[in-house]
Amino acid sequence: MSFSFPSSCPLPLADYPQVLMAHGGGGRLSEQLIDKIFVSAFDNPFLAQRHDGALLEVAGQRLAFTTDSYVVHPLEFPGSDIGAMAVNGTVNDLAMCGARPLYLTAGFIIEEGLKMETLWRIVQSMKAAASAAGIMIVSGDTKVVDRGKGDGVYINTSGIGLTEYNQIIAPTSVLPGDAILISGDIGRHGMAIMSVREGLEFESMIESDCAPLNAPVLELLKQGIRVHCLRDLTRGGLSSALNEISRSASVKIEIDETLVPVDEQVRGACEILGFDPLYVANEGRFVAFVVPEDAERALSILRGFDVCDQAVRIGTVGSGVSRSGNGLVTVKSSLGVSRILDMLSGEQLPRIC
Amino acid sequence: MSFSFPSSCPLPLADYPQVLMAHGGGGRLSEQLIDKIFVSAFDNPFLAQRHDGALLEVAGQRLAFTTDSYVVHPLEFPGSDIGAMAVNGTVNDLAMCGARPLYLTAGFIIEEGLKMETLWRIVQSMKAAASAAGIMIVSGDTKVVDRGKGDGVYINTSGIGLTEYNQIIAPTSVLPGDAILISGDIGRHGMAIMSVREGLEFESMIESDCAPLNAPVLELLKQGIRVHCLRDLTRGGLSSALNEISRSASVKIEIDETLVPVDEQVRGACEILGFDPLYVANEGRFVAFVVPEDAERALSILRGFDVCDQAVRIGTVGSGVSRSGNGLVTVKSSLGVSRILDMLSGEQLPRIC
Repeated sequence: MSFSFPSSCPLPLADYPQVLMAHGGGGRLSEQLIDKIFVSAFDNPFLAQRHDGALLEVAGQRLAFTTDSYVVHPLEFPGSDIGAMAVNGTVNDLAMCGARPLYLTAGFIIEEGLKMETLWRIVQSMKAAASAAGIMIVSGDTKVVDRGKGDGVYINTSGIGLTEYNQIIAPTSVLPGDAILISGDIGRHGMAIMSVREGLEFESMIESDCAPLNAPVLELLKQGIRVHCLRDLTRGGLSSALNEISRSASVKIEIDETLVPVDEQVRGACEILGFDPLYVANEGRFVAFVVPEDAERALSILRGFDVCDQAVRIGTVGSGVSRSGNGLVTVKSSLGVSRILDMLSGEQLPRIC
Repeated sequence: MSFSFPSSCPLPLADYPQVLMAHGGGGRLSEQLIDKIFVSAFDNPFLAQRHDGALLEVAGQRLAFTTDSYVVHPLEFPGSDIGAMAVNGTVNDLAMCGARPLYLTAGFIIEEGLKMETLWRIVQSMKAAASAAGIMIVSGDTKVVDRGKGDGVYINTSGIGLTEYNQIIAPTSVLPGDAILISGDIGRHGMAIMSVREGLEFESMIESDCAPLNAPVLELLKQGIRVHCLRDLTRGGLSSALNEISRSASVKIEIDETLVPVDEQVRGACEILGFDPLYVANEGRFVAFVVPEDAERALSILRGFDVCDQAVRIGTVGSGVSRSGNGLVTVKSSLGVSRILDMLSGEQLPRIC
């Protein structure tokens, strides 16, 4: 087989001549696409941080700058909608950089034929989310594409925030011995979406956990908690977040599965549909890597916020670097057995965010 | 007819129950959608500037922040592609705020099945454009949507820039008597796209004018030209740019059509396809509103740059405000007759940017 493709393309084209759904799934193929195509082309120290946003210095000020596109299907679902997600998701990415979110832009790609009423509801939802998170949407763009070339509406939001504390909150700051805290129970967002798609009915509806996380994060910093890394548990869930951090920091991560909070109904939905909650997306949960001596105080600060009232320590960063240099995440099950928690390898939940 | 729509929705739903292609065309319906749905919901002084980007103050620094999504079809066309457009378009929006473009984010919404080779070429084109414009792409996002829910790839870029001069470059700074300069000939981008779509063949191919404009703009400012407003001539072309500025500033604008440069081949393509060059999109052209005493010097500075070597004065801001408060643009034709140059009312060129 021969390709006219530039010989410098670092992706194995024979294996992946086309983009697959799994390239957007937050797992192994996503990581490969991002590394081989985007990071290698745009090569710069900011992208190399492999963080939720870039930490920049502009005229002596430390800014965070981030972007995310939202393609969730359906547009509206129990507990939230694409509009609130687009605001909270980008607010949370800035918060995960330890920055105070300030301003967002919003870019809409609308499919011809979207009901104006639906658009209006989504925009009202963005307005409410912006107000709740204390940010302003300061610039925007609207494009319309033909029927059959979109799916209702896709929304991109980009955000800038101000880093007011000196800590470098990034995967590369993680140290052996760090306590790993989780801000609440996992799997709600993914299971809310899947329940709607699959037409599942439960005693009470599973609602997305979509919420802004800037207030609890900034309170941790204000109270002097020595935070090394933060990561929200979106696409790919807890598993992807821990694997990405473990690889970026070249450390081993050990968590205890029995300590990870999962709501009974969410667990039930996962069992029916064949999902592992550790891989399911959330939109209002994060992990914090903190100095072990600060762990208890951090948890008590987090529990002061409704959105984090189930915060708990789930594990520890292992001593020594991972031998492979590629990181390693192990999880201890209820039977006391440890297994490797790998990245998602296929496409588990398409169009989840 | 009755609607369950919130009574506060300011758009006439009976007229527009759904989003139409023309809502994205850069003309009257676009303006209505933006005003009634987005600006009214996200109500804040930055959006109210109705500028190409928001001018913000962050920790004592004046920043510009802007966003644009690119949905051009086809993805590659004579002279450029969606990748270079996505970089140059956002660089230019920052430049139009008088800011030095610094950092961009890039969000990709990829349709399942896009050839990896095409994606790689587009990303290489973005890399080259970023390098030419002197900016860095510091953060990104990748989503994949199902076949038939996208069109190859849509790209959002957002950018931040630093405003190093004290001038407030915005529609509201425009004053009666200001000279109106255009940086070059118009219509190339739109006609390059349409020639491909319609399969037209010309003696030589019409190429898009897609180019970064930050260097000439920053040189005007560095040389002390008193610039009141800048606007690039993208969707809706020269007509939309002048109408938007005239409305925002509540001034009359008078231009002489015979002074507006149009390449002969572009004019021919416009005639064949039934387009008025004044409404056709460009991706490397802008208008500058400057103090009349500075006009000649500004032109000579602009002509020092290849991308502006046909820069010329095309008109003047009329004395007194427009009586309606809604602005007014008039254009004098080659016959010496003046006519009103209105906003585009339908959808002229879908998916042009």
